Amino acid sequence: MAAFVHFLGFCFLGLLVAVPWGAIAADEDPLQDVCVADPNAQVKVNGFVCKAMPNASDFVSPLLRKAGNTNNKLGSSVTAAGAANFPGLNTQGLSFARIDYAPGGVVPPHNHPRASEVLFVVAGTLRVGFVSSDGNSTLFTNTLYPGDLTVFPRGLVHFIINVGDSQAFSLSGLDSQNPGASLLPTVLFASNPTIGDDVLGKAFNLPQKEIDMIKAALKG
Amino acid sequence: MAAFVHFLGFCFLGLLVAVPWGAIAADEDPLQDVCVADPNAQVKVNGFVCKAMPNASDFVSPLLRKAGNTNNKLGSSVTAAGAANFPGLNTQGLSFARIDYAPGGVVPPHNHPRASEVLFVVAGTLRVGFVSSDGNSTLFTNTLYPGDLTVFPRGLVHFIINVGDSQAFSLSGLDSQNPGASLLPTVLFASNPTIGDDVLGKAFNLPQKEIDMIKAALKG
Amino acid sequence: MAAFVHFLGFCFLGLLVAVPWGAIAADEDPLQDVCVADPNAQVKVNGFVCKAMPNASDFVSPLLRKAGNTNNKLGSSVTAAGAANFPGLNTQGLSFARIDYAPGGVVPPHNHPRASEVLFVVAGTLRVGFVSSDGNSTLFTNTLYPGDLTVFPRGLVHFIINVGDSQAFSLSGLDSQNPGASLLPTVLFASNPTIGDDVLGKAFNLPQKEIDMIKAALKG
Amino acid sequence: MAAFVHFLGFCFLGLLVAVPWGAIAADEDPLQDVCVADPNAQVKVNGFVCKAMPNASDFVSPLLRKAGNTNNKLGSSVTAAGAANFPGLNTQGLSFARIDYAPGGVVPPHNHPRASEVLFVVAGTLRVGFVSSDGNSTLFTNTLYPGDLTVFPRGLVHFIINVGDSQAFSLSGLDSQNPGASLLPTVLFASNPTIGDDVLGKAFNLPQKEIDMIKAALKG
Amino acid sequence: MAAFVHFLGFCFLGLLVAVPWGAIAADEDPLQDVCVADPNAQVKVNGFVCKAMPNASDFVSPLLRKAGNTNNKLGSSVTAAGAANFPGLNTQGLSFARIDYAPGGVVPPHNHPRASEVLFVVAGTLRVGFVSSDGNSTLFTNTLYPGDLTVFPRGLVHFIINVGDSQAFSLSGLDSQNPGASLLPTVLFASNPTIGDDVLGKAFNLPQKEIDMIKAALKG
Amino acid sequence: MAAFVHFLGFCFLGLLVAVPWGAIAADEDPLQDVCVADPNAQVKVNGFVCKAMPNASDFVSPLLRKAGNTNNKLGSSVTAAGAANFPGLNTQGLSFARIDYAPGGVVPPHNHPRASEVLFVVAGTLRVGFVSSDGNSTLFTNTLYPGDLTVFPRGLVHFIINVGDSQAFSLSGLDSQNPGASLLPTVLFASNPTIGDDVLGKAFNLPQKEIDMIKAALKG
Repeated sequence: MAAFVHFLGFCFLGLLVAVPWGAIAADEDPLQDVCVADPNAQVKVNGFVCKAMPNASDFVSPLLRKAGNTNNKLGSSVTAAGAANFPGLNTQGLSFARIDYAPGGVVPPHNHPRASEVLFVVAGTLRVGFVSSDGNSTLFTNTLYPGDLTVFPRGLVHFIINVGDSQAFSLSGLDSQNPGASLLPTVLFASNPTIGDDVLGKAFNLPQKEIDMIKAALKG
Repeated sequence: MAAFVHFLGFCFLGLLVAVPWGAIAADEDPLQDVCVADPNAQVKVNGFVCKAMPNASDFVSPLLRKAGNTNNKLGSSVTAAGAANFPGLNTQGLSFARIDYAPGGVVPPHNHPRASEVLFVVAGTLRVGFVSSDGNSTLFTNTLYPGDLTVFPRGLVHFIINVGDSQAFSLSGLDSQNPGASLLPTVLFASNPTIGDDVLGKAFNLPQKEIDMIKAALKG
Repeated sequence: MAAFVHFLGFCFLGLLVAVPWGAIAADEDPLQDVCVADPNAQVKVNGFVCKAMPNASDFVSPLLRKAGNTNNKLGSSVTAAGAANFPGLNTQGLSFARIDYAPGGVVPPHNHPRASEVLFVVAGTLRVGFVSSDGNSTLFTNTLYPGDLTVFPRGLVHFIINVGDSQAFSLSGLDSQNPGASLLPTVLFASNPTIGDDVLGKAFNLPQKEIDMIKAALKG
Repeated sequence: MAAFVHFLGFCFLGLLVAVPWGAIAADEDPLQDVCVADPNAQVKVNGFVCKAMPNASDFVSPLLRKAGNTNNKLGSSVTAAGAANFPGLNTQGLSFARIDYAPGGVVPPHNHPRASEVLFVVAGTLRVGFVSSDGNSTLFTNTLYPGDLTVFPRGLVHFIINVGDSQAFSLSGLDSQNPGASLLPTVLFASNPTIGDDVLGKAFNLPQKEIDMIKAALKG
Repeated sequence: MAAFVHFLGFCFLGLLVAVPWGAIAADEDPLQDVCVADPNAQVKVNGFVCKAMPNASDFVSPLLRKAGNTNNKLGSSVTAAGAANFPGLNTQGLSFARIDYAPGGVVPPHNHPRASEVLFVVAGTLRVGFVSSDGNSTLFTNTLYPGDLTVFPRGLVHFIINVGDSQAFSLSGLDSQNPGASLLPTVLFASNPTIGDDVLGKAFNLPQKEIDMIKAALKG
Repeated sequence: MAAFVHFLGFCFLGLLVAVPWGAIAADEDPLQDVCVADPNAQVKVNGFVCKAMPNASDFVSPLLRKAGNTNNKLGSSVTAAGAANFPGLNTQGLSFARIDYAPGGVVPPHNHPRASEVLFVVAGTLRVGFVSSDGNSTLFTNTLYPGDLTVFPRGLVHFIINVGDSQAFSLSGLDSQNPGASLLPTVLFASNPTIGDDVLGKAFNLPQKEIDMIKAALKG
């Protein structure tokens, strides 16, 4: 459960996500040059306590070297580096992620509670979108080609789909050392424990059997 | 469309929500005593430009005086006061809201992209919950009685249901002058325009007809 | 004395205040979903260190359930919930308070050094005011009725009086987990130890006996 | 009244204060190298809009060259430089002030709603103090000699008195471009208009005639 | 000169840099979903004023599609996207950049006054380093291979060199919408106008002719 | 090496600097009245953990009482007070420094990675300048006389020279409790270990022997 507080990563519907989300958001300012995280320290604070002796190797990470395995139902794999698994990021206000996509692969609608995100397309053709939180639920959507940038505003729901014929690959910067990620299909229908059917039924205006069906599909 | 940028409020699935969400989150610090919003100013900035002459009446608002009408499918009504409709809140880093609930009434799962929320129960018995964004999708749930407080952490998905036999009423403070609210059933299945069925189908592991069914229910 | 650093609550002129001020202000951003305060931890940091295992019960508090006792000279009672007595608020940037008022009851002029405040009138008729810090000492004052909201800008001196014939009750959100409160009659004339009479005499342009009289009245 | 929003300076009990408090506090971060304030611009924002063309001369100010006149009842004079009168400070998060003191001169108890303050004694012997806002009203007091530094924490009530035999002089940095200053004798008993006697009488536990006497002394 | 305030990009020693540095740092929080910059607006504020109507196309940018031309003395080319040239980034707290390197190409020692930076190696072998600001001037240096990440802490001096035999390519996220970049050889010896030789001579402990020589080399 | 993380001070080219730079910048907000640093605590956090019991003496410091020794090659001496050597500054967002100058004395070009700076001239005539980071490398320079203020924007390179005939003395406030200082001649040519000659040679467009010469002069 300490993992709850101190970031572990997320799984898409039971499929493997290579690396936990270190995150990136509008974090507090650093109060010294560096404060390399000591994720195993007994004392837990907002962020992480600092290890006693920083080394050059604390500031380099191979976490994103390998493409994630996209042989799963979503056809995508998110690999992220944040302060928990790349300790040199602690207090620096940033995290970074790679996403690999099979043709047709999808990153389901999700939001980062503590970060904006800038995404760069290394390879492939991606359709992306985000939805406003102002009461209009306006969808802003774009198709991106290699070399294109897009931005997902702080905390808003967004998604990505590989609409090309080949494997795709993108990189993202986020402005928090631990942005978090709420994958909405999972959060809504497959949390631990699950949200009550009374809430879901009324929220989605659906009878019990339909709620059961959606839950079953996500476990499937 | 300017409304997109400058906050209008949200409707639950086409049902009336009395007043737009002014919100409350970890906003920037004020740089003077007061800067009463001039929402009609031509110049748009992060937040709002200040009106020239503040009056005492700029710092009082009757927006939350009346209970919202809960005679709708959700059985709930959110009435909110933020910098857009209570201009004295501009630069002060806070907003406030009331929620009224019929018996069984639900506030669907949603998140505020720019705020934490503290909720106080004035009347009724409420079950509330929020889900972690750390990859475990842990649900934290509590039942609240009159006088109880709870907190929904910054940006996390949360919901409320009136589990008592009578009308309920709660009040919330949020730490942004414009927290925003992403009502997830609407954002996912009834945005403008809607998210593509290719994305939703793969994200929820559902066939097209089920996606259609969910969309139809929300319009219903 | 550790209490000095880590928030204890305040007494009005020796009268009981039910619960300490946990406060709410423009705090730093959270770096994880939750960091439930461990107020008894040996290590003291800006805010509080996190307990190892958060439970659902950490996010609910009954502190404000009961009306405070207003049978005192001020005729008012402030009950507050902040990160020190409601540990789930730690890192969330918010606190909450209730105030109960006898007819004619007063919350003396005070300021919160780390928060703005939004106040909602649940019952009664209140006159409120705040004074600018811009050199003009402009007083902005309003009379509030049930359901009305008002805002006290960050750090400014403000007060409240129940001008109705019956018991009154209000609720406040503040944008710091520990806003603090400097009750000015106490801070000026009854601190521990007291401010020197040389300072007070010149500051108020009063002879010694008048300073003595004011100090005595507050002890009274 | 625009002065209310945009900082003008303060007078001690009707005595001259040479220059307005530009202030220094935990302001928002700058988003470009410089944004020299245009205090006369029609558009008012949080802080100030930027003038079109910065010049080197925008970044130098003679405001603190001359000692203030301490020939007044308080025996002190505060001269301050903030973003309003030293436009190069806009967005930089800092202000600066000098204080001159006659023997026995006092800076009355006051607080800065948006800043901490560090004070350096250039000449003279000063006794300073600040009072905690944690409910204990603990007074922390020190006597300072030339070359000494002290700090007044964010938003707390503090005062200064020249306890030496000669003219004294101090310099202060504050971490806001517009810290504000609430001079408490004035704010409490000589605001515009004044706080109601019903509030003051109960707050100070004093009969009407004593409140009248205090008000008269401050006008005196 | 308005360019000074509102970010234009930088040239390496007179060599072309393809696109101006839009930057990424610990910026203030957004107060609405989006605020697309209107860089041509007459009113200048901290950051940028918002255009009236955001479109989906405001949130996509082709600025980094093409490799920069590295056929210059440094053998490198920085292409950056910030709020000035990718207006959708305004208020989002992030910018992004690509760097292309010929074999042996160098990005000279520089710092970003308003941002930390995370760099990902797409292709090639890079040696990177940063120097502490704590009085020890400790150099932390690493050699990076494709897929590696590194971090340059907020405001610290850092550099990059392509130590491989082939063209290299990296991508960076920075936590400010306008991080700025002070290229130190240029800032020290080729500013407009130049820093006085009296300052440089004493700072570097060099005679006039050596200062002249360094200045000439940079113009060369 | 723990010193790296927790601020020690800096030496100019091997010459003595009396006191380490504690610094002052746009730090996070305080979450309680005071949190006096315990620099010797085993647990290291962003900033410092708090000592258990604050005393009045924690809030006064004699560090800047004595003029620094300017009998060195630079003819200057910086003495600074930050949270590491003046623990009462911890969480307060400010630091303070004095600089003493022999005639012709220079503070070499440097930047503070985490702070803006306001400088006040106590005695002497100083020429100061800072260079923009916007790609134009614009130098803004001013000559200051006793009583003048100037500002060095956050993170920008700046320098000071005593252009008068006599000893000079200035005082600075910075908006971080630990601003840091990157003295550029040292950082570029005398770091530990030194930056590679391949980087420096290409960055400055200089042959090896000239790089050697500059390095030797700084050791000289």
